[in-house]
Amino acid sequence: MKALVIGATGGIGSALARLLASKVESLWVSGRNQEKLAALAKELNANSVVADLSEETQVANMLSQVGELDLLIYAAGAVAKVNVRQMDLSEWRKVVDANLTGAFFVLKHACFNKGARAVFIGVYPELVRVNGLSAYAVSKLGLETLLNVARREMRSEGVNLILVRLPEVATNLWSVFGVVPRRALSPEEAAQKILDNLFVEPCPEVIEIARAK
Amino acid sequence: MKALVIGATGGIGSALARLLASKVESLWVSGRNQEKLAALAKELNANSVVADLSEETQVANMLSQVGELDLLIYAAGAVAKVNVRQMDLSEWRKVVDANLTGAFFVLKHACFNKGARAVFIGVYPELVRVNGLSAYAVSKLGLETLLNVARREMRSEGVNLILVRLPEVATNLWSVFGVVPRRALSPEEAAQKILDNLFVEPCPEVIEIARAK
Repeated sequence: MKALVIGATGGIGSALARLLASKVESLWVSGRNQEKLAALAKELNANSVVADLSEETQVANMLSQVGELDLLIYAAGAVAKVNVRQMDLSEWRKVVDANLTGAFFVLKHACFNKGARAVFIGVYPELVRVNGLSAYAVSKLGLETLLNVARREMRSEGVNLILVRLPEVATNLWSVFGVVPRRALSPEEAAQKILDNLFVEPCPEVIEIARAK
Repeated sequence: MKALVIGATGGIGSALARLLASKVESLWVSGRNQEKLAALAKELNANSVVADLSEETQVANMLSQVGELDLLIYAAGAVAKVNVRQMDLSEWRKVVDANLTGAFFVLKHACFNKGARAVFIGVYPELVRVNGLSAYAVSKLGLETLLNVARREMRSEGVNLILVRLPEVATNLWSVFGVVPRRALSPEEAAQKILDNLFVEPCPEVIEIARAK
């Protein structure tokens, strides 16, 4: 099995990559930060390829280099906490590109083997209706909408597009709030729960990871 | 009452502008096509201001020129029917900018009087889960998400943000399908139904216009 984790230097991405390292024959990791990515690849004995998800050419080159995949995990993401009235376009675009436009590029350019699973990290809609989170909510729920359409379009290719709804996870994204909620899952817990629910039959379209009790 | 229709040269926008012309003291119309806009403004004895909604500076200048509004209608929109695997970034951006990024700019820069109503044209989610409509579905449902967050943020300003869910309406957008469905409302019918439901108390957050029987 050949697997690629995009956003592999992030909290959830690196936890997923670590869990996958012993499970798949060929592991690829991708991220923007060359230094962090190289260290992770060395630790996991994985292949690495640097790409900025806001640049279609870089995404296309990355996916062409990696080749046909059995598993793709899109764990990249960004957040901003700024009210619409105060939000700079650059901030809006940074969040929308990381959560949504990059996923569009990946869906457009990825090569899949029959039966492949492609996993994208989404949210619970009711958890993101929060002041300051417009760009985050728009792009994460936009990702869900994108998958709903692409799933229909790509059915004949034999690839399964899977949305994972995550509750609060203790990653760096929470730095915009200044505090991580006490009930947040650790990235390792979240990653384990994703994998536990990923390789079941029939392949799920949506995986909902519950909040910690 | 001072009203502004954005996207006023489109099918629904021009129908709304025509209905509003005799109802409001001060009517402003905006669009990208200078010639069509000038003709409409002359016909309706309205003020006009040209703006490209994909350019934040143009949107900000337009809204500063118009001043404080009692009613704003965002009737601009674009559609493409291309599968994700084939879609050019320029096509994706055209649709997302017209339906979503432009609405972000408008929400950021508009000036409202207390009690103002700002209306945005959305969709029924189940009607846009259609092959080729990813950018349209993402941006129209993204608009709904944007309003859900901005409504909370802007509550203290006393402005009411309203989403209108429209069924099929016989506008130029349908040209991507080659045929307008027989049950489509005319733009005039749709505009009349929007206004019938707009000036009620308490102010609605969502107006759902039903399909024709």
